[in-house]
Amino acid sequence: MNSLLQEMGIAAKAAANSLRKASTKQKNEGLLAMEAALYAHQDAILTANANDIAAAEANGLPTPMIERLTLNPQRIKGMADSFKEIAQLPDPIGYVEEMTKSADGLMIGKQRVPLGVIGIIYESRPNVTADASALCFKSGNAVILRGGKEALESNKAIMTALQDGLMNAGFAKETLQLIPDPSRELASEFMKLNDYLDCLIPRGGAGLIQNVLKNATVPVIETGVGNCHLYIDKDAELEMATRILVNAKCSRPSVCNSIETLVVHEAVAETFLPVFAEALAPYKVELRGDAKTCSILPEAVPATEEDFAAEFSDFILAVKVISSYDEAIAHIQKYSTGHSEVIVTDHYQTAQNFLNDIDAAAVYINASSRFTDGGCFGFGGEIGISTQKLHARGPMGLKELTSYKYIIYGEGQIRS
Amino acid sequence: MNSLLQEMGIAAKAAANSLRKASTKQKNEGLLAMEAALYAHQDAILTANANDIAAAEANGLPTPMIERLTLNPQRIKGMADSFKEIAQLPDPIGYVEEMTKSADGLMIGKQRVPLGVIGIIYESRPNVTADASALCFKSGNAVILRGGKEALESNKAIMTALQDGLMNAGFAKETLQLIPDPSRELASEFMKLNDYLDCLIPRGGAGLIQNVLKNATVPVIETGVGNCHLYIDKDAELEMATRILVNAKCSRPSVCNSIETLVVHEAVAETFLPVFAEALAPYKVELRGDAKTCSILPEAVPATEEDFAAEFSDFILAVKVISSYDEAIAHIQKYSTGHSEVIVTDHYQTAQNFLNDIDAAAVYINASSRFTDGGCFGFGGEIGISTQKLHARGPMGLKELTSYKYIIYGEGQIRS
Repeated sequence: MNSLLQEMGIAAKAAANSLRKASTKQKNEGLLAMEAALYAHQDAILTANANDIAAAEANGLPTPMIERLTLNPQRIKGMADSFKEIAQLPDPIGYVEEMTKSADGLMIGKQRVPLGVIGIIYESRPNVTADASALCFKSGNAVILRGGKEALESNKAIMTALQDGLMNAGFAKETLQLIPDPSRELASEFMKLNDYLDCLIPRGGAGLIQNVLKNATVPVIETGVGNCHLYIDKDAELEMATRILVNAKCSRPSVCNSIETLVVHEAVAETFLPVFAEALAPYKVELRGDAKTCSILPEAVPATEEDFAAEFSDFILAVKVISSYDEAIAHIQKYSTGHSEVIVTDHYQTAQNFLNDIDAAAVYINASSRFTDGGCFGFGGEIGISTQKLHARGPMGLKELTSYKYIIYGEGQIRS
Repeated sequence: MNSLLQEMGIAAKAAANSLRKASTKQKNEGLLAMEAALYAHQDAILTANANDIAAAEANGLPTPMIERLTLNPQRIKGMADSFKEIAQLPDPIGYVEEMTKSADGLMIGKQRVPLGVIGIIYESRPNVTADASALCFKSGNAVILRGGKEALESNKAIMTALQDGLMNAGFAKETLQLIPDPSRELASEFMKLNDYLDCLIPRGGAGLIQNVLKNATVPVIETGVGNCHLYIDKDAELEMATRILVNAKCSRPSVCNSIETLVVHEAVAETFLPVFAEALAPYKVELRGDAKTCSILPEAVPATEEDFAAEFSDFILAVKVISSYDEAIAHIQKYSTGHSEVIVTDHYQTAQNFLNDIDAAAVYINASSRFTDGGCFGFGGEIGISTQKLHARGPMGLKELTSYKYIIYGEGQIRS
């Protein structure tokens, strides 16, 4: 085992053992100390970030990537604010969800506890360094972060600030750690650090997530790939359908809860599609349709099989006209990544059927898929959106970063 | 991808899609039809089992293994009974744990749904074929089983019976499937069947579990390795301590919730250890102690470092004398596999501290670790005991074989 990772793992485990027993009050003081430290270290963070940006520009990185890498006082305030906001959220740790008296007279309670040590692998977005730390810390978990190499200097400066805050509040600085070597070899070893990591959360694009799923032996929570569908039923209301379509596709196409495919019932296709096309026109949405769609909309280009499977994350929309509800369900089930699926309908039973028939993290009647978000769901924040079924599904807030243990109050019972 | 596994995976996914929507009544009818089918196929099952046993004897398999492989009418009744019992348990599927009205006016509910398709890898215990099938079926999951090669004929006969029962009750026979080829190569491919399996549960010894953890890319639930400790505090009552010790060590030493190490406070070691040794003597428990233990008990042999880490699953007990509560906690934390840990004490604060300080699936005050069991916890049955922190911890009953989805009733909302 790599000695650096082992050392970090041992330190993280020890820190997790202390943090697990910290009171909510102590943890909130830690969060506020980190908030203050981010401001205190602002100049150092901005200097480090300028170095990262200069290197990225010299290496010819694409503009959107540089945009995501860039920090400024406003963005540092955003990071600091998240520590303050998370300090105000309720603490899931310690809560006993249920306590029953067993047939043997044992009092058996199910108590929320931290996961322990969480590993996070992410791309070159320095804000993740702060946001992930805040959520994991509040839920009582130590963290080892492995960020993208383009953001290394920024991440180091942010981590120095956070560790300063931790120590000011009396916590071990190893409660939060950043792997200082962004090599691929070390990342691969990190994914196999079963002795020290209780779980691993990849945050980023499909490539990163697939790489982690394939190589990790530590339990992984898969997040974020969303090929979301909007199904416009024959009993849909045109005005509502148009409003939801525009919101779900155009309000922020780069995020995973935006829709990628529009499925329209043929009974309304000829009336609705031209209205939809007109509503999408101001956003210059490229329409890739099946034969029926292309026959109705001259501006649509023919869709390929890949288009129906794609997460475009862009102003592109695949369009499919179907001839029955069942065909819509079959299409969605075939291509869904299990993130968010929406029906628009005024028919009560069709709406109920959709909720039952679709297996996804979030299934909507008459609302935009863009609501699949920890904030909108009332969690106060999120570490990502799980698209797997084990452990947590959908937006993952503080509670989803915990486990539980059974606490048992006996009176000398033995098993017969 | 192996074509047999792919075919089974496609069929399982289709079956899971139907089973997901089956009512509790329909599923219970299915369970009772499988109960009946096991009796109807009893002769075929016993004949197949006799062939497995003959082959096992010819190959010189150890007696305990042949014992676990052996079926008789009584054991078939045991399997059939479990279908009847599980039919009587409450169905977790469909239950909405919480439904809130969000800030945007969305009604957001968290509804229990099946995991989908569960893979189970196990050793040569034919009863697992039936028990695992019953639990997974009731919780709405399709199953693909991969049992040990020594039990192949028995497993095939049991599966034929179960599929007969399924069809009698109107379910697809692919709801439950057995991999008919028990080769290692196919097992390895099975662990990577991410397109079709929602999770993989290994049931068996440490070797099997480690192999699955190392090779699987499908999310795994780790079960069953238990190096459990019994800590006798300085404020323990001798009679209760002795009773719990004998029960926790000797009532069934082969199972994972038995204790392997006794940790005794030095303040009571000289008084208690001879009483303990006398109580364990009728069971011929081999004592492996540290220096202090050996100086008190002439019958103890010196323990090695490995002894304190071992899951003996036998009439062997490691014994450690410690000089403080903190030393006891440190010892347990170092060697614990996170299964079940027990303190015996009459001191209120020490008991509370133990609950807080120990991180394990089940933490007991004054009761035997042998209670860590789905039946004793009131779950009506269990698929195994999880020693990981993701998804489920401790005994896994029907609810732990489920996931959830968010169902959202909107009224045309879009995200601003």
